Amino acid sequence: MKDLTGLSGISAGRIIEILDKAAVHKDLFLNTENVIPRTLQGKRIVLAFFENSTRTRFSFEIAARNLGAVTLNFSASSSSVSKGESIVDTIKNLEAMQVDAFVIRHPSSGSAEQISRITDKHVVNAGDGIHEHPTQALLDIFTLRNYFGSLQGAKIMILGDILHSRVARSNIFGLTTLGAQVGICSPVSLLPADTNSLGVNVFTSIDDAIRWADAAIVLRLQLERTTGGYLPSLEDYSLNYGLTDERLEKIRKHMLVLHPGPINREIEISSNVADRIQPPGYSKSVLLEQVTNGVAVRTAVLEMLLGGATTKTH
Amino acid sequence: MKDLTGLSGISAGRIIEILDKAAVHKDLFLNTENVIPRTLQGKRIVLAFFENSTRTRFSFEIAARNLGAVTLNFSASSSSVSKGESIVDTIKNLEAMQVDAFVIRHPSSGSAEQISRITDKHVVNAGDGIHEHPTQALLDIFTLRNYFGSLQGAKIMILGDILHSRVARSNIFGLTTLGAQVGICSPVSLLPADTNSLGVNVFTSIDDAIRWADAAIVLRLQLERTTGGYLPSLEDYSLNYGLTDERLEKIRKHMLVLHPGPINREIEISSNVADRIQPPGYSKSVLLEQVTNGVAVRTAVLEMLLGGATTKTH
Amino acid sequence: MKDLTGLSGISAGRIIEILDKAAVHKDLFLNTENVIPRTLQGKRIVLAFFENSTRTRFSFEIAARNLGAVTLNFSASSSSVSKGESIVDTIKNLEAMQVDAFVIRHPSSGSAEQISRITDKHVVNAGDGIHEHPTQALLDIFTLRNYFGSLQGAKIMILGDILHSRVARSNIFGLTTLGAQVGICSPVSLLPADTNSLGVNVFTSIDDAIRWADAAIVLRLQLERTTGGYLPSLEDYSLNYGLTDERLEKIRKHMLVLHPGPINREIEISSNVADRIQPPGYSKSVLLEQVTNGVAVRTAVLEMLLGGATTKTH
Repeated sequence: MKDLTGLSGISAGRIIEILDKAAVHKDLFLNTENVIPRTLQGKRIVLAFFENSTRTRFSFEIAARNLGAVTLNFSASSSSVSKGESIVDTIKNLEAMQVDAFVIRHPSSGSAEQISRITDKHVVNAGDGIHEHPTQALLDIFTLRNYFGSLQGAKIMILGDILHSRVARSNIFGLTTLGAQVGICSPVSLLPADTNSLGVNVFTSIDDAIRWADAAIVLRLQLERTTGGYLPSLEDYSLNYGLTDERLEKIRKHMLVLHPGPINREIEISSNVADRIQPPGYSKSVLLEQVTNGVAVRTAVLEMLLGGATTKTH
Repeated sequence: MKDLTGLSGISAGRIIEILDKAAVHKDLFLNTENVIPRTLQGKRIVLAFFENSTRTRFSFEIAARNLGAVTLNFSASSSSVSKGESIVDTIKNLEAMQVDAFVIRHPSSGSAEQISRITDKHVVNAGDGIHEHPTQALLDIFTLRNYFGSLQGAKIMILGDILHSRVARSNIFGLTTLGAQVGICSPVSLLPADTNSLGVNVFTSIDDAIRWADAAIVLRLQLERTTGGYLPSLEDYSLNYGLTDERLEKIRKHMLVLHPGPINREIEISSNVADRIQPPGYSKSVLLEQVTNGVAVRTAVLEMLLGGATTKTH
Repeated sequence: MKDLTGLSGISAGRIIEILDKAAVHKDLFLNTENVIPRTLQGKRIVLAFFENSTRTRFSFEIAARNLGAVTLNFSASSSSVSKGESIVDTIKNLEAMQVDAFVIRHPSSGSAEQISRITDKHVVNAGDGIHEHPTQALLDIFTLRNYFGSLQGAKIMILGDILHSRVARSNIFGLTTLGAQVGICSPVSLLPADTNSLGVNVFTSIDDAIRWADAAIVLRLQLERTTGGYLPSLEDYSLNYGLTDERLEKIRKHMLVLHPGPINREIEISSNVADRIQPPGYSKSVLLEQVTNGVAVRTAVLEMLLGGATTKTH
């Protein structure tokens, strides 16, 4: 495998290979007594974030450095992109400097795939437009697997603006590949057009979705993106689609709750749901576990792509 | 000691422990033949600067890397803060990535203290609003101690906008704890309300303050902050409160001069005072010594907080 | 040699010393089996870019890290420069933090030279206004030498906005020092006033220049800089001075083509000229080779300046 640009088309075996490797890295990472083998010593990884990010960039940066790689930070605001250079030219130039991999976040859907086709170096998609965000989905799936053991038959609902969510798309591909049942729940105006081909259950009532699901991946309402009149008012959204204790108590007390962050408190999720990590009843939030797992998953991905000859078969 | 959020309430013994450790690190740092022990190898330190900075960030970054730590740069402009995430959520997320310490500069007074309460990781305040800037005060005190031997009874005046100065506040706490006499000198409109409880001498005439003091810490007039009509015109300020050779010659020729930088030349300090490092008479500026000492002090602070089990008693 | 602020006044022997050292480093760099000796271990290099840059900053950063140095990134937008501090004060402060070298890009012509005079630390000019950009010229010369063996008598034309180009100036100095013949070609309004003293052939017809030259260094039309009415329309410029296959086919099929990047496709150079790296006929573009060579040249420069006592004779 040269690149990870999405989970669409990735086999169950490959996903499980990444998850298993991530489990090893999580142990190494959390136990400070361990020395993490510097398997990427001498490698150069460009973190090319054409959109702002804290957690994803840091997560990749920590993963890369844990393995001994050099990271080079590139942000659109301080680069030649402002001089009008095409992204292809930028990539070819960095490639000529002998970098080994590009971790790319870009507002344009499909850009990671496009870049992977023009470079021999490794490409990891860290989110491209509304297309895919595979490492986020892998960390969600890793987190879910920790609780459910196997994902076969597990009922996972994804709640929120599915239409504009690369996180939702990657999760749908990965979860269905591993045999989970996926439900998506959102206002009709935020449902994608191709729900049939996605192989998911569609809910427009959050109560119905809660009744059905074992776990909920709550999406961030991307307030900065929603132009175009898709959205009802925030009050309406929160009232009809916010995940709250009142709702859980009424319908289903035990629910595993995930969220890719950053969260909008009291909009798509209430603070008491988001912060309850040791449930006396009701739901259990694994938001911060997800963040820790994210480093482990990205460490596994980088090592698998860059680490050795055995994994470099395309 | 888990955190260093301010010098208020820090004991004399603890301050002296830091200063002594800084003296050792200054020697190690200045003599390139020395190999600095990498006591923080494997540690991850986030430099979270929610306000712009060159010298303070670089100073911490050099200190951290001297000890072998990995630094992760976080600036508000390229982060999830622009997505509206609360600082508490940002910190909890970074914590979940197993970072070991946060060095924080933030415009909100008390934010470092607030953050220290919600995380088990180490927190160093690199300036929070108009509250405290403890490592700046420690490096000022370290510099003063180098010249006065002991601070017991030394007369140190702080000149400028005391009301809005976190540097002034941290220095007042630290210097008085070590037995120095502190004088503050500023226009009445820039004096804090609680001068009595601070235990300082108050001057509104710079001539009186110069007559009294052995050393002056000249504050930067924070031109970018002064809204609200506190300030007289710059000309008036410079005329009445600028530290100049004319003033020193008239009243007191020998004066040790400190300034946290960056300086506004010919506003709060004249260039000939700021730049005179080998005094034939008059004053002696130690501005660049302060910068060198800053790295030593920050190295000491980071090592003391993160370095070993013996210092981790809260 | 303490600094590299320009190629004006640098001897042929010194330039060849750098090129030879760069050749060694290129081999080390390209062959991942090699371990690059970490000759700058423990050194601190500040990358102070007061103008945006991707390739130049990354190139220096990779060069510095290959040799084991610590790099500290400084950008004007997040620094005390926005607080009005003078660049001299900024440099003196960083110097006090015991950094070993400054790599500086600055919009003001002559600023690198000015800084080199006020600091004992090493200074490398990474582009100052319209003055010089010596490492770019060195990498161009290195690339040309690879193809021509010796530059003695080689005919190199520089095409574009010569008046505002630091790349052109550094190349003219370096190439003529090594015995090459240099031609400059541009609209009259973009020719410098001192063409006589530069010792170059002047062309205002691109066809004449192509007929004359063995190789062309095509300059970027700096769209973001051209204020003041120097420029004809882009269409006119492209029509009269763009390097295209039609033009080459008509006059001279074999031409080595260089460009410092980033390129404006179809303005100063057509895509088919820029991208043809394996010529069936016509021209051969070495744009990406230049980028690789840039890392080698910068590695050589940094090592020569900072590397050891033998090269530190001023």
